[in-house]
Amino acid sequence: MAASNERIREVVEAYVALVGDGTADQVVALYADGATVEDPVGSDVLTTREQIHAFYATLEGLEQETRLLEARICGGQAAFCFEVRTKAEGATYVLAPIDVMTFDDEGRITSMRAFWGEGDMRVEG
Amino acid sequence: MAASNERIREVVEAYVALVGDGTADQVVALYADGATVEDPVGSDVLTTREQIHAFYATLEGLEQETRLLEARICGGQAAFCFEVRTKAEGATYVLAPIDVMTFDDEGRITSMRAFWGEGDMRVEG
Repeated sequence: MAASNERIREVVEAYVALVGDGTADQVVALYADGATVEDPVGSDVLTTREQIHAFYATLEGLEQETRLLEARICGGQAAFCFEVRTKAEGATYVLAPIDVMTFDDEGRITSMRAFWGEGDMRVEG
Repeated sequence: MAASNERIREVVEAYVALVGDGTADQVVALYADGATVEDPVGSDVLTTREQIHAFYATLEGLEQETRLLEARICGGQAAFCFEVRTKAEGATYVLAPIDVMTFDDEGRITSMRAFWGEGDMRVEG
C-alpha cells in the first residue's frame, strides 16, 4: 500500500528541516535503497547511496536556514517549494527550488528531482 | 536543440492565462502531438488529443481567474505553482496546483502532471 499523504508530508517536512541543519547521514536516511537524485533537473542523475551522500555532504558546512513554502501531495508523490537561505561572506543567498519526490510504501524517498536555475537565486545584504 | 528557458516561460505563462479564460482549442494548441496529461497525479493519464481536449473543455464554462505564482525552469522542463480562482454559486474556490511540464524542441508541451489534492482547495466568501 502506498505511503499515506500524512506520512509523505512528515518526510517532506523532515527533508526540508534536515537540508537546513542536518547531516548528510540524516538526509540520506530518508532515501530508499536504489533512489535517484537529479538536482538540478537536467544535470547528471545520482544513482548510488555514495553519490547521494556526497551531494548532501557539500551542504554540511554551510550556515543555512530552510522553510517549506508550499507542498502538494497526491498519488503517493509530492511537489513542494521550499526556501533555502545560505549565509556566506556577509551576504545571504536565497533560493527556493521546487522539488518533486516519489516514495516507497514506507515513505522512503525513491526519487528526488529539483527544479531551479542560476537565475532563481537572489542575494540579500 | 531544446527549447530555451525564455520560450518555456512564455508557454507556461500562456498556459496559465488560457486555463483562466481561453478555450479548450487554445489550450490544446500548446500541446505537442502524443502529449500526455496526468491531472491530478495519480489519476488516469490522458494520452490522446481528444481526451486532453475534453479535459480542458470542462473548464470553458467556468468563471475563472488564474495567475502564475512561481516558476522554475531547467533542463528543458518546468515546475510551476499557479493559482486558479473559480467563482460558483456565490463562493470563490481557490486552488494552487504545482504543475510539472516537459517540452519538445519548439516549446510544445509533451507532458503535464498536476500536483494537488482535494484538501488543497480553499473556499472564500
